[in-house]
Amino acid sequence: MDTQKPLHFVTLLGSLRRGSYNAAIARALPALAPDGVTISPLGSVGELPHYSADLQAEGFPPAVLAMGEAVKQADGVIIVTPEYNYSVPGALKNALDWLSRLPTPPFAGKPVAIQTGSPGMIGGARCQYHLRQIFVFLDAYVLNKPEVMVGQIAAKVDSDSGELTDKATRDFVATQLQAFGAFARRG
Amino acid sequence: MDTQKPLHFVTLLGSLRRGSYNAAIARALPALAPDGVTISPLGSVGELPHYSADLQAEGFPPAVLAMGEAVKQADGVIIVTPEYNYSVPGALKNALDWLSRLPTPPFAGKPVAIQTGSPGMIGGARCQYHLRQIFVFLDAYVLNKPEVMVGQIAAKVDSDSGELTDKATRDFVATQLQAFGAFARRG
Amino acid sequence: MDTQKPLHFVTLLGSLRRGSYNAAIARALPALAPDGVTISPLGSVGELPHYSADLQAEGFPPAVLAMGEAVKQADGVIIVTPEYNYSVPGALKNALDWLSRLPTPPFAGKPVAIQTGSPGMIGGARCQYHLRQIFVFLDAYVLNKPEVMVGQIAAKVDSDSGELTDKATRDFVATQLQAFGAFARRG
Amino acid sequence: MDTQKPLHFVTLLGSLRRGSYNAAIARALPALAPDGVTISPLGSVGELPHYSADLQAEGFPPAVLAMGEAVKQADGVIIVTPEYNYSVPGALKNALDWLSRLPTPPFAGKPVAIQTGSPGMIGGARCQYHLRQIFVFLDAYVLNKPEVMVGQIAAKVDSDSGELTDKATRDFVATQLQAFGAFARRG
Repeated sequence: MDTQKPLHFVTLLGSLRRGSYNAAIARALPALAPDGVTISPLGSVGELPHYSADLQAEGFPPAVLAMGEAVKQADGVIIVTPEYNYSVPGALKNALDWLSRLPTPPFAGKPVAIQTGSPGMIGGARCQYHLRQIFVFLDAYVLNKPEVMVGQIAAKVDSDSGELTDKATRDFVATQLQAFGAFARRG
Repeated sequence: MDTQKPLHFVTLLGSLRRGSYNAAIARALPALAPDGVTISPLGSVGELPHYSADLQAEGFPPAVLAMGEAVKQADGVIIVTPEYNYSVPGALKNALDWLSRLPTPPFAGKPVAIQTGSPGMIGGARCQYHLRQIFVFLDAYVLNKPEVMVGQIAAKVDSDSGELTDKATRDFVATQLQAFGAFARRG
Repeated sequence: MDTQKPLHFVTLLGSLRRGSYNAAIARALPALAPDGVTISPLGSVGELPHYSADLQAEGFPPAVLAMGEAVKQADGVIIVTPEYNYSVPGALKNALDWLSRLPTPPFAGKPVAIQTGSPGMIGGARCQYHLRQIFVFLDAYVLNKPEVMVGQIAAKVDSDSGELTDKATRDFVATQLQAFGAFARRG
Repeated sequence: MDTQKPLHFVTLLGSLRRGSYNAAIARALPALAPDGVTISPLGSVGELPHYSADLQAEGFPPAVLAMGEAVKQADGVIIVTPEYNYSVPGALKNALDWLSRLPTPPFAGKPVAIQTGSPGMIGGARCQYHLRQIFVFLDAYVLNKPEVMVGQIAAKVDSDSGELTDKATRDFVATQLQAFGAFARRG
């Protein structure tokens, strides 16, 4: 039946740090996905040059084309990112800027979920509402709830393995993936 | 007397396009500045790598250090930028992300003015409020009024010379520079 | 067939002024709706007292209960409002504050469209993104595009009849109603 | 000397609930103010009718005139408010809407500080950035730091006395008042 349609989501990571806490969240997602949902990472936002219309005129960089095609093929995109300076990391925003220029903008009509992790108490909330405004222009549909804002994230990632081990956080993230699956199937 | 203290402002440009309309605004500023105010451009945001804490750990890139020092020396910073996808261009945000990590964050207590130009009617308003939220974290003080949002900018830049020739726009921008001078002197 | 399912939308008006330009937009909607869509106004936000948890404890005011029931019964809600001070008019926000407290919050999962009209060039854009953030909490789904922001609205309402007569504006609003019908049927 | 100039701040409270936690914060302020700073409450936002240009045309309500005069006389305004639905409470926004219409808008050039308290972890952050955007239009200058966002506020107010008794919160609020005094004297 329709609710059993398999779904494939892709993750877009906003941090370039090797030991990134948000990368730990992103890596945890495949194991937390509900039945029938697979999740794989997009390429690194660090591989894209700074957006410039002049560069675009010479032809989209292969990394942009590949990322755009993967977004287009996916049933939904999960943004996993730290908050930088009360907003979206520049490198992540740059990737969205490139993708928005593709002849067939890949986010149009696409389901999107947002997850932010940060060392402080607020868990990246400010970044999330900036992302939501950006996705209005991109014509994506962002899941409302539950909002995943992981505060005090350093305590939730195992310092030896570098993996997201905090059970409450894992369970909460799994709840969002469940809701996102239903949201994407409704699409 | 104190109101005659000379001021030096620097401009930070959010577009990398060679024929950028916002670059035309930025180039017009020195001639529009009130007496006693000089204005010069910062380096290009395109010269900075994507921010990464790993890169930072190896030492700040020279372009970041130079930009940070110029901001620190200036009496105020004027952001001149297009709006990308209802927010701040990724490359510009990336520059702010780097500058925010310097041991002595150069925007702390710094007067800032914002100018946006865009092809549409709205003139980049959405980008401006995202910038303002970012500058709360950076502890800069952003001039409230007048807000310079140049809509339909293609018609205001001469297509031959590439310069900002529209008189009403030039006059309005000059009004902001006057207000910004008073604001920076008050600081 | 399913796409012919009749829809009923309700409008929530943010202005209390008798000669309100936004009221003129709201009054124009029924005639601009596509086939199979009917539209009627909710009660006035001016009839609700200021929200107070103490008042709520005495029992929801009848005007709140009636508005909540009408939202619950509707297939979608169209917010039509001016922008006050770069945000949502207090009286409109107050209505949303009351509705959010009902035992069965009526906006949960509800399709919402936004229309703003203002005397200036920007057409109420700033108000729209604040509304969108509010509707994340209320778990409503807001149509992305087209965004109806009617600038220079005084010139688009007939000064004798007080009705929205500008053809381009009427056509654009009709385009949004068409998109909103498809969006609500997808629900 | 100039730094000893006495200052008087007024508080504007966003909640109408008798046992309001934010009211407890506001009541604590006079005792937490630095030497030379006095603080007193403005009238209740609940006393103002919903804003309407028609009502305004009949003459500003006395409560609006009184509030406007008190703001004008003050050296700064401290907003103390809960967050409702990820934004500003309607009744508080309505007060700002009225004040903005006074012939001499009382917030122009006025120093403003923001304090929010909420039951959750985030402490009202979302409300604060909406207020900051509103104050751009009102041309007030809002203190950047420290940002007072009191999360889990129910545990910080004594359930018997109804007063703000949590020492860490009181100390942090006092730190903001100190910074706000310096900010207002700089004005």
